[in-house]
Amino acid sequence: MTLTAAPTSSDLPILRAVEELRAQVAAWRAEGLTVALVPTMGALHDGHLGLVRRGRELADRVVASVFVNPTQFAPHEDFDRYPRDEAGDAAKLASAGCHALYAPTVRAMYPQGFATAISVGGPAEGLCGAFRPQMFGGVALVVTKLFLQALPDVAVFGEKDYQQLMVIRRFTRDLDIPVRVEGLPTVREADGLAMSSRNAYLGADERARAPELHRALTAAAEALSRGADADGALTAIRGRIAEAGFGTIDYVELRDAESLEPVTAVARPARLLAAAWMGKARLIDNVPVAPAA
Amino acid sequence: MTLTAAPTSSDLPILRAVEELRAQVAAWRAEGLTVALVPTMGALHDGHLGLVRRGRELADRVVASVFVNPTQFAPHEDFDRYPRDEAGDAAKLASAGCHALYAPTVRAMYPQGFATAISVGGPAEGLCGAFRPQMFGGVALVVTKLFLQALPDVAVFGEKDYQQLMVIRRFTRDLDIPVRVEGLPTVREADGLAMSSRNAYLGADERARAPELHRALTAAAEALSRGADADGALTAIRGRIAEAGFGTIDYVELRDAESLEPVTAVARPARLLAAAWMGKARLIDNVPVAPAA
Repeated sequence: MTLTAAPTSSDLPILRAVEELRAQVAAWRAEGLTVALVPTMGALHDGHLGLVRRGRELADRVVASVFVNPTQFAPHEDFDRYPRDEAGDAAKLASAGCHALYAPTVRAMYPQGFATAISVGGPAEGLCGAFRPQMFGGVALVVTKLFLQALPDVAVFGEKDYQQLMVIRRFTRDLDIPVRVEGLPTVREADGLAMSSRNAYLGADERARAPELHRALTAAAEALSRGADADGALTAIRGRIAEAGFGTIDYVELRDAESLEPVTAVARPARLLAAAWMGKARLIDNVPVAPAA
Repeated sequence: MTLTAAPTSSDLPILRAVEELRAQVAAWRAEGLTVALVPTMGALHDGHLGLVRRGRELADRVVASVFVNPTQFAPHEDFDRYPRDEAGDAAKLASAGCHALYAPTVRAMYPQGFATAISVGGPAEGLCGAFRPQMFGGVALVVTKLFLQALPDVAVFGEKDYQQLMVIRRFTRDLDIPVRVEGLPTVREADGLAMSSRNAYLGADERARAPELHRALTAAAEALSRGADADGALTAIRGRIAEAGFGTIDYVELRDAESLEPVTAVARPARLLAAAWMGKARLIDNVPVAPAA
């Protein structure tokens, strides 16, 4: 099988077909090289590039995928206006040392007659799963496909989407997919705002207010680790972010760090997670909560 | 990793843990050998052994799995009384040239916290899918797991479960599982009865009447290929099997041979499929219908 990668200005091979991806991975494997996969929806920022750099630490070769996956968006959501910039993405990936970009078409991923769905319970329940019920099924479907198309040794995801990371760990284990799933701590702007492609939806004033989400979560996590009451900590977060100009608050919750089951006290590692709207941007963030010493 | 296969009287290695299965397959691959998987629910008969023999034609090594999968049975169905005979199965597999038996426990396949499900539309709709709505999801789940545990080159299934074969082809393609799915024509008793583990539920008189299902399907397929009307052909089957002593007829249908979409005329290869009860046994069968010349 010939590798027909089209060179770009950045000389990063762009693979369009699953056969090209598999040929590239097979060529690397034939050289005895290990492979990391970094699945993304494009609109890349420094958070994504951190995933690529982590992939380079974990494996000899890194392939990033860029695919805005329609099955994880509801009809009213931002699939159509989700930011897309393949040339910019390719240049950024090349600068971070990525070895190939896999960018399949929607039609190649979901051809006519496609009839399979995956659903995940457990960590997918509640939080974003309650507000975006289609999302984790769509994530499970596309990540399963990407894993089985590339069969990498390891795949790297950001902790910014912490619930997603736990869901991916869950179905990867449940389906016996032979891929190791690695999480990377959230990459943040200097003022603490979690990097996100959806930050592009923020106006200047909204952008200035948005970091309060992370500040409120961090302060509450510290209070919880000093033994503060959970209800009080959650109420404090809600108050702070409402005052900072966030509109609808989808959720602010304390969960077990692994199972994501709701907890009311921090006896073992926990996670504070929140989702709230700033203007037209739905922002999510989360921080670890260490048990009180 | 050490392979801790327990020898049996038949000297067929029995693998219990997924790590043992993967070590065995890896050892074969290290020798440059190809691998076929034959998934079964045990209670093996000559039909299953035909799958093993076909596996030997298609690959260098054959591993059969025996796992009565709870997720494809509804609570009222025969999971508990489904026939189980591992020693007998192992001896039969060895006699057919099988190289290893993989027999995991239910707890190993579905550990505590398991939270993932797969659903399939398209070919899973109607026919058995209408009467056993949980079945194909359960089949998709366990076959996906077995495929990803073993990662064989090819897997072999019988056409006796024709709809199941089409469902497996569908989700294997949809999820990009890198396993080739091969079907084997139904193995039959001398009088035409499709071999099935559930034939063990038939009393002597019922056993004598059961082959009429296949005779009726075959006669109707021939009539259809000569241009007979589909409604008439289906009605004739129903009449013949009711007269032979079948009780409830779950369905008798004419479908496209690939998509399994209902058809009313045989313009391209089609399939006649039926399910009906003889005493306590739900028997299924199907035959190809060639387009009229």
